[in-house]
Amino acid sequence: MERVVRHFEEELATLQERLLAMGGLAEERVREAVHGLSRREPDVVARVLVGDEPVNDLHIEIDDRCFKLLALHQPMAADLRVIVAAVKINTDLERVGDLAVNIAEASQRYLQHAPVKPLIDIPRMGEIAQTMLRDSLDAFVRRDIELAEAVLAEDDKLDALKTQIFRELLTYMLQDAATIEAALDLILVSRHLERIGDHATNIAEDVIFMVSARDVRHQGGDAASAQG
Amino acid sequence: MERVVRHFEEELATLQERLLAMGGLAEERVREAVHGLSRREPDVVARVLVGDEPVNDLHIEIDDRCFKLLALHQPMAADLRVIVAAVKINTDLERVGDLAVNIAEASQRYLQHAPVKPLIDIPRMGEIAQTMLRDSLDAFVRRDIELAEAVLAEDDKLDALKTQIFRELLTYMLQDAATIEAALDLILVSRHLERIGDHATNIAEDVIFMVSARDVRHQGGDAASAQG
Repeated sequence: MERVVRHFEEELATLQERLLAMGGLAEERVREAVHGLSRREPDVVARVLVGDEPVNDLHIEIDDRCFKLLALHQPMAADLRVIVAAVKINTDLERVGDLAVNIAEASQRYLQHAPVKPLIDIPRMGEIAQTMLRDSLDAFVRRDIELAEAVLAEDDKLDALKTQIFRELLTYMLQDAATIEAALDLILVSRHLERIGDHATNIAEDVIFMVSARDVRHQGGDAASAQG
Repeated sequence: MERVVRHFEEELATLQERLLAMGGLAEERVREAVHGLSRREPDVVARVLVGDEPVNDLHIEIDDRCFKLLALHQPMAADLRVIVAAVKINTDLERVGDLAVNIAEASQRYLQHAPVKPLIDIPRMGEIAQTMLRDSLDAFVRRDIELAEAVLAEDDKLDALKTQIFRELLTYMLQDAATIEAALDLILVSRHLERIGDHATNIAEDVIFMVSARDVRHQGGDAASAQG
């Protein structure tokens, strides 16, 4: 029994390590996509477009690890909550990887046009989304409810920036039809970044449930975003 | 032991029933949102905006059921795969409920403008997305791999329609700046509908894994959508 328990703890530690690795990878791809866009570097953007495989491989590996932990060790209570949280976080991180590709796609199109404006708010959104992602995973590993709650609070900033970007770009589009196509792509990028924040929020909510067995979802209409 | 097994089977049946109920509810809300938009009925749209609670309540209830089934019965192999699939499907259905709200938000704004064009492709997208959702859940309950694979095949139709809608609306926007705001909302609706198809695709993939223990995700670059 001693050996089995030890083995379980080791497996659980490895699972967390792999989730962190996946989070780091997904975050890095978001960073690259946004940098490629804001610094107008098509090569960087192109790299994000084709580099989804490591994230997808980790997605399958982590799912498999969770499944084996559930099947072989039949964990109870707290350990069970950690593994179910890991299943969900894994899904969220995989979607973040997809969204990095979506950002790169829109960026690739955007870079074929003249710049609509200097990009300030979009890199800002990128930084907030990356920080939220990193903090939510730190909160998972450290079982840190306060940090998880701080992540939830950050999401409003992303929503506000997204709405601001939308209004500003709409003004450009209305004034000059030549900006429409490019402005549309920036609007899409801002929405992809907002969704990355939503995934970090999901992770933070899972952490709060995992640590406290308290369900903070669906308190105060999280469903709707302002510019849906 | 006999009693415990029986109890487990009953609980599993109830879990599936509740997931189907949630799927039906989410699908109905998507239908209402799209009808409200295409028939220009603001009251119907407004109803979708405030009616998210039953879906959210089911989300928490189903998560709780999955957790209890895992904790109390420590299921193995096939049963374990069903419950892990249920955890994931539950998340997908909750997002579909959110997307119905997002469609209603964009529709509410759209209905404040003159119609850009008669809506044909968007109701068509709505129907495809709803059918995909229904079929993916039927495939889950019936353990029907063929039906799940048919759902995966439908996703290309949604992508094609989304791209077509985007191109057409871009033409309107370029020709007449007065259509820009309204056209933007239609583009957003088409993207929300495409994401509902993505969730049905996720469910179908989970069903295939659940039945066959074969992982069909990440085969052939599912990450990127054409107009991301």
